[in-house]
This record gives sequence, C-alpha cells and structure tokens, in this order.
Amino acid sequence: MQRIVLARRPDGRVTADNFKLEETATPAISDGEILVRNKWLSLDPYMRGLMDDRGSYTDPFAIGDVMEGRGVGEVVESNHHKFAVGDWVQGYFGWQTHAVSTGHMLRKLDPQQAPVSTALSVLGMPGFSAYVGLRIYGKPQPGETIVVSAATGAVGSMVGQLAKLAGLRVVGVAGGEEKCAYAMNTLGMDACIDHRAAADAIELRRKLAHACPDGVDIYFENVGGKTLQAVMPLMNLEGRIPVCGMISWYDSVGQGQGAIDGPNMLPEVWSSILMKRLQVRGFIIMDHQEHFNDFLAETSELIRDKKIVYRETISKGLASAPQAFMDLLRGNNFGKQLVLLDS
Amino acid sequence: MQRIVLARRPDGRVTADNFKLEETATPAISDGEILVRNKWLSLDPYMRGLMDDRGSYTDPFAIGDVMEGRGVGEVVESNHHKFAVGDWVQGYFGWQTHAVSTGHMLRKLDPQQAPVSTALSVLGMPGFSAYVGLRIYGKPQPGETIVVSAATGAVGSMVGQLAKLAGLRVVGVAGGEEKCAYAMNTLGMDACIDHRAAADAIELRRKLAHACPDGVDIYFENVGGKTLQAVMPLMNLEGRIPVCGMISWYDSVGQGQGAIDGPNMLPEVWSSILMKRLQVRGFIIMDHQEHFNDFLAETSELIRDKKIVYRETISKGLASAPQAFMDLLRGNNFGKQLVLLDS
Repeated sequence: MQRIVLARRPDGRVTADNFKLEETATPAISDGEILVRNKWLSLDPYMRGLMDDRGSYTDPFAIGDVMEGRGVGEVVESNHHKFAVGDWVQGYFGWQTHAVSTGHMLRKLDPQQAPVSTALSVLGMPGFSAYVGLRIYGKPQPGETIVVSAATGAVGSMVGQLAKLAGLRVVGVAGGEEKCAYAMNTLGMDACIDHRAAADAIELRRKLAHACPDGVDIYFENVGGKTLQAVMPLMNLEGRIPVCGMISWYDSVGQGQGAIDGPNMLPEVWSSILMKRLQVRGFIIMDHQEHFNDFLAETSELIRDKKIVYRETISKGLASAPQAFMDLLRGNNFGKQLVLLDS
Repeated sequence: MQRIVLARRPDGRVTADNFKLEETATPAISDGEILVRNKWLSLDPYMRGLMDDRGSYTDPFAIGDVMEGRGVGEVVESNHHKFAVGDWVQGYFGWQTHAVSTGHMLRKLDPQQAPVSTALSVLGMPGFSAYVGLRIYGKPQPGETIVVSAATGAVGSMVGQLAKLAGLRVVGVAGGEEKCAYAMNTLGMDACIDHRAAADAIELRRKLAHACPDGVDIYFENVGGKTLQAVMPLMNLEGRIPVCGMISWYDSVGQGQGAIDGPNMLPEVWSSILMKRLQVRGFIIMDHQEHFNDFLAETSELIRDKKIVYRETISKGLASAPQAFMDLLRGNNFGKQLVLLDS
C-alpha cells in the first residue's frame, strides 16, 4: 500500500516537499476491524490548517503523520459483523490506498442511489455544509439577494443552487471567466463576478453593487480576503453572514496565525457589523449531524430530478494528491476536488 | 440662547475648531409645539461618526448643523396639549440651551422616580443598550464568563452589574488603575484588566487569559482595537459577541472609513469566528423599543435597592461640551459623560 505523510510544515504556501509518499505493508486486521481499499480521496481546504502547528478544528498533524482526509472505498476484508466484503463505505481514511477501520464514523453507501464519489461532494460534507449554512444561519427569504463566494466550488455551487430553488437572487463570486460562465449558465446564478478581473476590493465592490441593486441580505462566506472586504459595506440591515471558510487566507497565513501585511481591514468590517446590525456566525458541519438524513433525502431527490448539478475535478493516483491540493488552495480546480486512487 | 454647530469636519481626530458656539434668538413656538430649556446634554461616542461625511446610523451632519445629542430639559412654554410648563422631558434636543419640539420622540420624566439626568445614562440609552445587548444577544448563563470592554463606561458598567446579578464571572477591561479599582470594588467585577498597562494585544491577551481560566463565553464589545484582538482567541465554542460600539476606532478613522495602518487583524478575528463557531451580532437600541418599559421597571427597582450603581462625569456649561466630547473619545472621562447646561 501507499500513503502520504506530512514531511515538514509549510513555511507560508504549501509546496511539494511538505509531503512524502511512502510504500508500506498492507496491515492485517484484528477482530472487529475491516480493511478498506480506498477508491476516492477528498481534498478539502480545511486540511491546510491542520498542517500548521496550532489549534484548528482538531489537533494538528505531527510530522510523519498520514495526511487526514475523507475517502470512499470498498471493504476488501472484514472481521466486523456490520460490514461485508464488497460494501462501499465513506470515512476518515486519510491520504492512503488502504485503511483499517473499526467502523467508527463510517457510513455505508448505496451505489445504486448515486455514484459513490458524491458521498464526498454534493451528498457529503460540502453539500451538507451548504445546506446547513444556508438554511440555519442564512435564513433565506424569497426575493432576497445572496452573494456566495467560491461560487463554483463544492460548497458554493450547492449554496447557489439551493438559494435559487428558495427564490433568491443569487450573485456568485468566482475566479475566472470560465467559472463565472458556468455559475450563470449551468448553476443558474443571476450574475457572477470574476474577482480576478477586479484590481482590488473597491473595484470588486463596484461590480457587486451593480449586480445587487437591492443590496445583499446574505453573504455566504467561503473565502475571506478581497471578497469579504468588497461585500461588507453592501450588506443590508439585519443581514446574515454564515462563515463556512476563508480559503484565500489559508495558504498565506494558515488558520488563526494572526496579522498579515497590508492595511488593517478589521475596523471597516467590524463597523459594517455594527452599523448594519449584522449576524455573523461561524459554523462547522460536525455540530449538525441531526439534520444529515433530511439533507440526504432532500438532496438525493433534487439530484435525481436534475434540479441540482455538480462538477468534480479528478486527479489520478495517490501521488497526484499534493499537486491537486495546491491547485485547490490556489483556485485552479473546478468544482469538487477528488483523487481517484485505484486508476 | 446658545448652540454649538459643526464648523468643519474632523481630519482624523476631533479638535476644538471642528465646533463653533453661536448665540441666537430663542425661537417662538407655533401651535402644537413646546419650548424646552435644556438642563442636561448627553455626550455619546456614536456622535463621532456623524461628524464625517459618510453613512452611519443616520445621515451625517451638514456643516453649520447643530450637533445632535439627547438631552433632558424643562418645558418653559407650551402650545401642546400633552405637555405643561414645568414638565421634565427627554428628547433629541441637540447641543443647545433651548429647543423647540413637536413632542415627537419625547419622553416625559418623573423627577420623583429618579434624578432626571439618569434618563440619559443608567435609565436611558446606555443602560438600555447594556440590557438588550446582554439579554438578547449575549444569552448569559449562570457560571459563564463575560468580558466587557470600556468596563466603567455608561454601557459597560451596566453590563457588568447585570451580568454579576445573572451569576456570571465578570472580567472588565478599562483604561487605568483607578477605573479598574472602581470596576472591582464598586461595580463588583471579579477582575479588571488595565489595557493601558499592556504594551500590546498579546500582553493584554495573556492577562485576560489569566483572569478567565475557563475561557470567555461572552465578549460585550464596546471598543474594537487592541481589546478585540486580545479577546478573540480566548473565546469558547459557540461564544457570543454583541457588538455595541467600537470607540477605539471612532476618532482615528471615523466609522466605516476603511483601512487603517498597521497589520491586518481581520484574518485572525475572522478565523476565530469560524473555528469557535461564534455568534457576532451588531445591534442598535432603536430596534428594540418594545423592551423599554420592562427595562425601565426592572432597572429602576435595582437602582432603588442599590443593586446597581452608576457614576457620571459632569462638565459645566455648553461651551465645555467640545472638550468633554474629546475627553470621552479618548477615555478621559469616568462613567457617563454629561454636560450641565444651566449652571
């Protein structure tokens, strides 16, 4: 089997030499365990924070640890009464071709219901984050305007489509003309602004203001940075900001590292919160598992009916994971970033 | 009569030449109007934002406009069936010795219930802001820890006392040893940190962490700046941050002016919101008038029973208002800043 471990911590942006590909013997399983051959590995922005030596959602990786990641695989050996050889499962299998599991935090998948890879994207954590963040913290009302950043990403594309179905005006922000065209033509957004074509937050704000003639009621936050600065003064009174991520800052400063160079944008952002009486709410999907079955039922049907579409970028082979992860952090992927392990 | 108008807009910090004292004829009243001789003028931090030429809670002052301010005065002439000569009233009378009113947004006061000046402090907008911000957005639970900035100010001192009565551990942040001693010895806070004795946000954070061994569940935000930066990483999961003001930034940048020099603290603050799943909520007291009578009844009783104390800094004569306002913005006052007009 193969696995990728953290070779050294990033000094600023992630580079290839932060990772090391290792070959090792496939482990034997004990009673109550299963061996999973991973087929799909999910790459997600939050992993960047775990590479630094500071607190994040969970403890950081130690040097030499297998990189964390959710995956989908097939049970190839089983000493567990709940799992049979041939079952498809989703779990925290890490960046490796095989994983031993006790069944903890595993979800069995039905390959007839949807392609198993969707358990990592539209029917998994990203889709569920969109669902919870929009419904619980966005509190959308028909006729309102939502701005969603990283609009074609795994989360943003779902937010946009759910918001359209809920009767909102949806304005995306994405990087590049191709993504913006996709957001409008395929995801059905009313407008999409290319942040790469805006020299700074002021120009981006001007374009957003034009696309949001009635102001912004909900800003679904995935990126931080220039987009956050652009949108804050456009918020309407009592606007809502579900904070799901801040990918633009992950790779330059890590998560929670503190000050970065440049002007201090905190006073302006904080001032908008006060003046517009905004509700800003960080959330993490692990806190909302009680809604997962509702989400799954509702979203599966929307996908079957083609009311929700999704897009995946697939890189092939475990060795491709580090470059695919760097592409994800830099916005070079398109839709959900997956690694196909058994190609 | 005398009045103070905006002579020119501040270029950075407020200076005396932003104001002009004028003498003018006392106006005659029409049908349905009253003439009020103002006794007390309230100085409040939010006025600073109105002096700049940009949006705030309300439209900014024009050059030559009378400075806005709430006041308490006595009716000296009346053509209004609801008001008699000798009535005490609280209203938006501005920085002037006399004001004509149609009765709009006026509140009649009972001088037997409490000293009339308290309608501008502990029984008025500052006290009510504390009450609403703590109860509705702070959601305090017995045993939790609250940090309150500007802890001896008109709002902060009330937040601290209400939080103690609700069974919380209360940690204040104030400027100077004298204020900190007052916060602990008179207001009953469990601890109070002198932000002037901390070289930077890191040192302030270390001191706060020591005073909050169980972390911070509620941060009642009145100041922004160094205190905000210090407290954010100390917040507990699902912590609440009612945003009532940000006085440390008002006089350097005005409200909403944008970037200021120094490192960009936005990523760190935004990261805490995400990682700790915080609820940040700007609010303004005008949105909550439906709770005012409850507040008044409850707080009047607490004051009568000496369970809540309050402190006022009184400057004498209308001409003293500009300097008193500058002192307020720089934290040189102590408790509620009032101007006694008819001394």
